[in-house]
Amino acid sequence: MYRTKTCGELRLADVNQTVTLAGWVQRIRKMGGMTFIDLRDRYGITQLAFNQGTEAFEKANSAGREYVLQATGKVIERQSKNPQLPTGEIEIEVSELRVLNPALTPPFTIEDESDGGDDLRMKYRYLDLRRNCVRKNLELRHKMAFEVRRYLDQQGFLEVETPVLVNSTPEGARDFVVPSRMNPGQFYALPQSPQILKQLLMVSGFDRYFQIVKCFRDEDLRADRQPEFTQIDCEMSFVEQEDILQMFEGMSRHLFKTILGIDLPALPRMTWADAMKYYGSDKPDTRFGMRFVELQDIFHAHPGFSVFDQAAYIGGICAKGAASYTRKQIDQLTEYVRRPQIGAKGMVYARVEQDGSVKSSVDKFYGPEVLGEAAKAMEAEAGDLILILSGEDAMKTRKQLSELRLEMGRQLGLRDPKKFSCLWVIDFPMYEWSDEEQRLMAMHHPFTSPKPEDIPLLDTDPASVRANAYDMVINGVEVGGGSIRIHDAQLQEKIFEVLGFTPEQAQQKFGFLMNAFKYGAPPHGGLAYGLDRFVSLFAGLDSIRDCIAFPKNNQGKDVMLGAPGVIDQVQLDELQIDIRKK
Amino acid sequence: MYRTKTCGELRLADVNQTVTLAGWVQRIRKMGGMTFIDLRDRYGITQLAFNQGTEAFEKANSAGREYVLQATGKVIERQSKNPQLPTGEIEIEVSELRVLNPALTPPFTIEDESDGGDDLRMKYRYLDLRRNCVRKNLELRHKMAFEVRRYLDQQGFLEVETPVLVNSTPEGARDFVVPSRMNPGQFYALPQSPQILKQLLMVSGFDRYFQIVKCFRDEDLRADRQPEFTQIDCEMSFVEQEDILQMFEGMSRHLFKTILGIDLPALPRMTWADAMKYYGSDKPDTRFGMRFVELQDIFHAHPGFSVFDQAAYIGGICAKGAASYTRKQIDQLTEYVRRPQIGAKGMVYARVEQDGSVKSSVDKFYGPEVLGEAAKAMEAEAGDLILILSGEDAMKTRKQLSELRLEMGRQLGLRDPKKFSCLWVIDFPMYEWSDEEQRLMAMHHPFTSPKPEDIPLLDTDPASVRANAYDMVINGVEVGGGSIRIHDAQLQEKIFEVLGFTPEQAQQKFGFLMNAFKYGAPPHGGLAYGLDRFVSLFAGLDSIRDCIAFPKNNQGKDVMLGAPGVIDQVQLDELQIDIRKK
Repeated sequence: MYRTKTCGELRLADVNQTVTLAGWVQRIRKMGGMTFIDLRDRYGITQLAFNQGTEAFEKANSAGREYVLQATGKVIERQSKNPQLPTGEIEIEVSELRVLNPALTPPFTIEDESDGGDDLRMKYRYLDLRRNCVRKNLELRHKMAFEVRRYLDQQGFLEVETPVLVNSTPEGARDFVVPSRMNPGQFYALPQSPQILKQLLMVSGFDRYFQIVKCFRDEDLRADRQPEFTQIDCEMSFVEQEDILQMFEGMSRHLFKTILGIDLPALPRMTWADAMKYYGSDKPDTRFGMRFVELQDIFHAHPGFSVFDQAAYIGGICAKGAASYTRKQIDQLTEYVRRPQIGAKGMVYARVEQDGSVKSSVDKFYGPEVLGEAAKAMEAEAGDLILILSGEDAMKTRKQLSELRLEMGRQLGLRDPKKFSCLWVIDFPMYEWSDEEQRLMAMHHPFTSPKPEDIPLLDTDPASVRANAYDMVINGVEVGGGSIRIHDAQLQEKIFEVLGFTPEQAQQKFGFLMNAFKYGAPPHGGLAYGLDRFVSLFAGLDSIRDCIAFPKNNQGKDVMLGAPGVIDQVQLDELQIDIRKK
Repeated sequence: MYRTKTCGELRLADVNQTVTLAGWVQRIRKMGGMTFIDLRDRYGITQLAFNQGTEAFEKANSAGREYVLQATGKVIERQSKNPQLPTGEIEIEVSELRVLNPALTPPFTIEDESDGGDDLRMKYRYLDLRRNCVRKNLELRHKMAFEVRRYLDQQGFLEVETPVLVNSTPEGARDFVVPSRMNPGQFYALPQSPQILKQLLMVSGFDRYFQIVKCFRDEDLRADRQPEFTQIDCEMSFVEQEDILQMFEGMSRHLFKTILGIDLPALPRMTWADAMKYYGSDKPDTRFGMRFVELQDIFHAHPGFSVFDQAAYIGGICAKGAASYTRKQIDQLTEYVRRPQIGAKGMVYARVEQDGSVKSSVDKFYGPEVLGEAAKAMEAEAGDLILILSGEDAMKTRKQLSELRLEMGRQLGLRDPKKFSCLWVIDFPMYEWSDEEQRLMAMHHPFTSPKPEDIPLLDTDPASVRANAYDMVINGVEVGGGSIRIHDAQLQEKIFEVLGFTPEQAQQKFGFLMNAFKYGAPPHGGLAYGLDRFVSLFAGLDSIRDCIAFPKNNQGKDVMLGAPGVIDQVQLDELQIDIRKK
């Protein structure tokens, strides 16, 4: 060992011990006859002191930032203590210093607030990872993954590794593929999820399966997507929805308790229909209220304002205490909802004044009693600001209003990353209409079980059929989701029929799993969490990128490694493939 | 939940309870007015009893093997108990039976000794996994991986996930590659190991890293290789070889204790030179002795037998108590060592008779005193069989003798899979000569550190330089290996020079890591275990395949999934690649 102690552990009680530390130079201060070095390792920072006239002093003075040093000396009490540091009461009077490795000056400062831009830090990710704030996220990730395993192991789950070289997923997103040299012209696919394999493990009688596993999707990358991401993938046999909700509510409670020290209350459950009605989102951020209130009945009773008169849906949110918003701020909100990504045509607002009267942007169309009625429906009080959107398509308008609500929550400081609000969203619809495909598509996946009581609706009104599907939502982020699967062959055929597959198409796409089910499939269900998102929530990060050691940018590139890259002609020859000329 | 108890937990103490079980039909016995079903789940088997005249009786009689049933009834004491089963003292008097799913008759029996051949079982792997003996291996794998994580977590290691989509490895085996759609003409490579990334994490100050991680090699598959395999990959900073040996000896001890209940003694250490000298192998099976004794001095002092006279090496092993081997058995051994895979020209044998005299196949060339001298050197006693190989190339002959030794050990029952013998093999050579490349190659990898005392030999006799490299060997299997890495830039340059790289070539191949090292690399080292092999050793398996849930065959195919397979033209178009016509 190059050290007897780490840089994070020495305290006043250790004074007079002779110790050896090893680490990196965080900073050097030269003060007259003394030189001080802050030596850093993963565990902390310890101050080294060097007295003029010693050999160590000369060496210390010639060292630079990020040099790797080994220092031996006596622990002494510091004269000017640093209460910010756990080791701040002591320093090492160094008698022997060894430069283990010199260092070029890093291209950006190794500090929590670095001067390096994103691109530079990604190129030198191995230096970026030296920053305390980045490394902490990966320590958290380790801890969370470990606690997930501990909990699931205690509950009798077996972690089973499923293969990475598999075949293409029917009905999924785009796969990454791997040409097979031994089987020319054929390709493996990288898994988008181990969905089919975990269902097979249930057929195998594994009873309780999980895996923390890399998954892959070759999609155009939105801001917070990675081509490879990690799932906590779980499946259980002989269970109903309630069993799964209980089991994984327990897992979340375990994580909140062991990692954050928070006693998570029982998770509220909200139907998908209510989530859409009150929040315009299937992943509502419930850290704050500001629930939607539908106002079309009130305004339609007093026609006059053509926008509202023609709207199928009029919904408002009440921003507490925001009546002081200036005209400019309100104009900015209007601009915000009119951005093409959101697409609202306009916004109506109303302030509740101190005297209780309501001043709105539609005063010329409605008398004070109408606006008062609306304010009352919204439980708005003096000092509140009411914001209203309307439209012909209720679902679209709700989604616009959801964006406005989230923005108002942000502006009013109601989305504190240190505060957590978790819930289950349940009773998702089985199907959603695809404008693109002009047919009903499975909202979750085609093996999702409908609610038994809704099965008769498959024939009469399939779009209204609810599924035994559920998402866990924390702070407006879907961290996990799953469903009870269909284990009954006849019901499965019916579901495929509603999806518009002929029996032949169904057999071609899903035959493999359906055949396996014929050998005795147990009732089963499961869910998967996105580990990257789960960790970034716990870390209070905006992006999943900072909890991934070596992330890719949104061209799918690892700029540090230079991946992807060109490969040798020899390899193309072996694989018997050619790259097309442009 | 579809059950209140599992099929493995009911005992006499539970008699009179009403319970619900769910599982698969292992077997059905109809005996006059009673029908019995053995119901199986992951946790065990419980007997269900059905009385004639009940509805449940009728249902039970119409069920078949592997049907999925749910049974409710009263726990009663069995009349004829089955001491083989933990649940053998009780049975369930079933009052209500529900067929959760019928099952086709499986194509082979779901028993420890199945009637299904390998190919059939692999095609229906999801049914093969129902067999108790197969599932047990995967339960063991889960447990071992979990205990590895528990130990390393306690020792302050962080599990860090490294990317799967990386770039090609210099100097490695053949990579699997993944065409990048977003970067046409470019390819990702799947990692052969996270070697470079884990060394970067040391540069980042992560101090102690591990990962249980999938690795990939596109090699022609030998009997016990898989294109994707799992490593326990580890790296530590500020350590010397001794620290790593201690740490991972501790891990092995933890696994042996927690998984097998075995107190592993301190691991003996054997130099690579001794391993080759005494066992002809860098992974000696030390469950038994039969160490090599060199006999060239004895025989060369009495010339006459031209084969021995011309041999640079003559080595013997002594098989205790095997003097009773028949001529036919000895001929078979001679055939064995003459197989092309082993390549010996012939074998000399000698029996030590009950009267102490030695009878050999070379009696006409050597007097009894010479053979007696050889027998004495080998510490052979009455009843022992001596087997001798000779050759012009000592190393090659040792390897042949090693094969013979292992075969004799097998025949004499000295290789009990339930007995474990572990050791460290240390002091590997830095380089080995490649006939193919006509140059020295790195035996471990080019970042391996030489022993400091051997550094001067780099100039004078590089082939004799020993490395700070080590393997953990159990029962003749290399389960893990690693090295201390070079952190000194000048020494690294020297090593590349010996490998025959110009500075430009070295920069081109390894520049990325060397550049990272310039920013302050700590002394570091590590190792990696093959999890598949480790588990198969613990399970006493001959092949790693049985401890992998969904293995590939030796054409690299998953016959169950049908991977690899053809992909759509659309996808080839998106990737801008073409498959060559034959």
